[in-house]
Amino acid sequence: MTDILPQGATIGILGGGQLGRMLSVAASRLGYRCHVYDPGANPPAGDVCAQVTTAPWDDAAALRAFAASVDVITFEFENIPTATLDLLEAAKPIRPDRRALSVSQDRLTEKQFLRDLGLMTAPFLPVSDAASLTDAVAQIGTPAILKTRRMGYDGKGQARIMSAADAPNALAEVVGAEAILEGFVHFSHEVSVIAARGLDGQVAAYDPGENLHQDGILRQTTVPARLSGSQRADAVLLAGRILNALDYVGVMGVELFVTPQGLVVNEIAPRVHNSGHWTQNGCTVDQFEQHIRAITGLPLGDAGRHADVVMENLIGDDMDRVPELLAARDVALHLYGKTERRAGRKMGHANRVVGRG
Amino acid sequence: MTDILPQGATIGILGGGQLGRMLSVAASRLGYRCHVYDPGANPPAGDVCAQVTTAPWDDAAALRAFAASVDVITFEFENIPTATLDLLEAAKPIRPDRRALSVSQDRLTEKQFLRDLGLMTAPFLPVSDAASLTDAVAQIGTPAILKTRRMGYDGKGQARIMSAADAPNALAEVVGAEAILEGFVHFSHEVSVIAARGLDGQVAAYDPGENLHQDGILRQTTVPARLSGSQRADAVLLAGRILNALDYVGVMGVELFVTPQGLVVNEIAPRVHNSGHWTQNGCTVDQFEQHIRAITGLPLGDAGRHADVVMENLIGDDMDRVPELLAARDVALHLYGKTERRAGRKMGHANRVVGRG
Repeated sequence: MTDILPQGATIGILGGGQLGRMLSVAASRLGYRCHVYDPGANPPAGDVCAQVTTAPWDDAAALRAFAASVDVITFEFENIPTATLDLLEAAKPIRPDRRALSVSQDRLTEKQFLRDLGLMTAPFLPVSDAASLTDAVAQIGTPAILKTRRMGYDGKGQARIMSAADAPNALAEVVGAEAILEGFVHFSHEVSVIAARGLDGQVAAYDPGENLHQDGILRQTTVPARLSGSQRADAVLLAGRILNALDYVGVMGVELFVTPQGLVVNEIAPRVHNSGHWTQNGCTVDQFEQHIRAITGLPLGDAGRHADVVMENLIGDDMDRVPELLAARDVALHLYGKTERRAGRKMGHANRVVGRG
Repeated sequence: MTDILPQGATIGILGGGQLGRMLSVAASRLGYRCHVYDPGANPPAGDVCAQVTTAPWDDAAALRAFAASVDVITFEFENIPTATLDLLEAAKPIRPDRRALSVSQDRLTEKQFLRDLGLMTAPFLPVSDAASLTDAVAQIGTPAILKTRRMGYDGKGQARIMSAADAPNALAEVVGAEAILEGFVHFSHEVSVIAARGLDGQVAAYDPGENLHQDGILRQTTVPARLSGSQRADAVLLAGRILNALDYVGVMGVELFVTPQGLVVNEIAPRVHNSGHWTQNGCTVDQFEQHIRAITGLPLGDAGRHADVVMENLIGDDMDRVPELLAARDVALHLYGKTERRAGRKMGHANRVVGRG
């Protein structure tokens, strides 16, 4: 029997973007309050939470006061500084915990962890300088992609290497950071599994969604994905294996490449995931509520899917389409309240239900 | 063309209970922020809104500051003091407006308005003293029910008159307030229509729900309701007639008695309504988002129903059933974050989806 957070308890959320915003709304449905910590002023989550702290990640006094005011801590992004986690962890449980973060914060650790679990990944080698890059390119071949080990998201901190001659420029791109060279995976499409593990070890996984990226940013997720029955089962089983190996608590996004040789794990995200937004209109318990259930010790909800959904991100000028989307049948809009529109900025998403049953 | 509130605009909500709470969440999905005004400390809506003002209804300075901070004002309950409305109305638009409030704040005005529209109501007569009560009982007959004209809700301020001898006690119950005597309506069941009218005059109505009350409090709403095709059409048409007659903007709940002679209007509520909570899990656009769309000038959403739902209120000790409801399939929980449990207090509700299509 696990400890269940009582009604009215407070959940601390590190990061106040759209994921924190939707987590806070889900927490309210379960009778919890949220306190959001974000270095930026007026974070999107601030519109729908009980309390906001605006302070940098290294403000020890603010972090201590935040930790004192909450019952459990979670986060909406994985690149939280280590010192911040050290300080918070001493005061209150962080879920998911450090192990999941340390694996996902470092692409090399992540790939090694996945390989050790017996899962397929892209071929990879660590790169720290020109010599090790030359060796890695020779072993892995081209095309390949050089990525910083840490802090990469939405295609940043990455450089393609189409031939050995590209290596010097690629190295300049990652400006001396510890890096990893990954071989290209020839895949037909990408899917992701959104899975959850409760405090009691129970696991639940949503039906995999099929993802479409553009310029390194997720544009669209469609459920059901194009997968055979055995691929679908494989996807869910491998996600469960990852969660159990980490003794994980919360929701995780697992991105997979579909290849003729099987499913190759691209990356894992120890948090609710953009490719799981379709669950808001396709499932009784969406990924945000599922995460809150997990970290508060509640039983996980049924992850069954009752609709076919196409989730589309609204990025930058996609907001011009809001009037049309508001008028469309079977479209649920989820806007993030960001008043400043920028190219590449995620402003909202729309879930279009294309079939039910 | 109507003025549409821009992204990031602020909606003022009078009253911070569960209706205000769910309105604020819906507003966030459309990119709006909410400022809640409530005399009580820590209102449920305070967990999910951008700003809270805790001040009495007669605090002119607080009301002015509130009005100055918002772009439009709405409310979650109809018994707002007249002086409060006078002050706010001078500063910002209130939607729905005074006319809807004046009709629904007074049972006598309400009944007369409905009768003037050609709609059926219970027989009624005004009562101000013992003599007029005796006359009214003689004309209307027994059983009948004496109700205060103002401030009644959840069965309070009411007294049954089973025979003329009950009259003195009934009068004592309403303690000299202006009252109305209503004749009993022999009905088979009660239904309600949740309907909306936009700033542009567009009207949308949800499928009627069938309501079950206990001790004067709504226990359960089921969709679809037991209604013939023509009854269903009548219900929706009469709701539209009421909205148009009031030049109404927002969501309204219309309670109807089903009788062999037709539909009798019991009462109207100029706000989102407990009997419309099923729309959260039965429709793409729920009553809360529909209300926000209406008052912000956005087009109304499709009110189509995609599921059969049983909505059950969780009152007082019903909260003991939360673990069972969390574990049930196809049940969506909506808790209000109230830490103090009291008999008769609405603590949350559960929407059980019992069929899809």
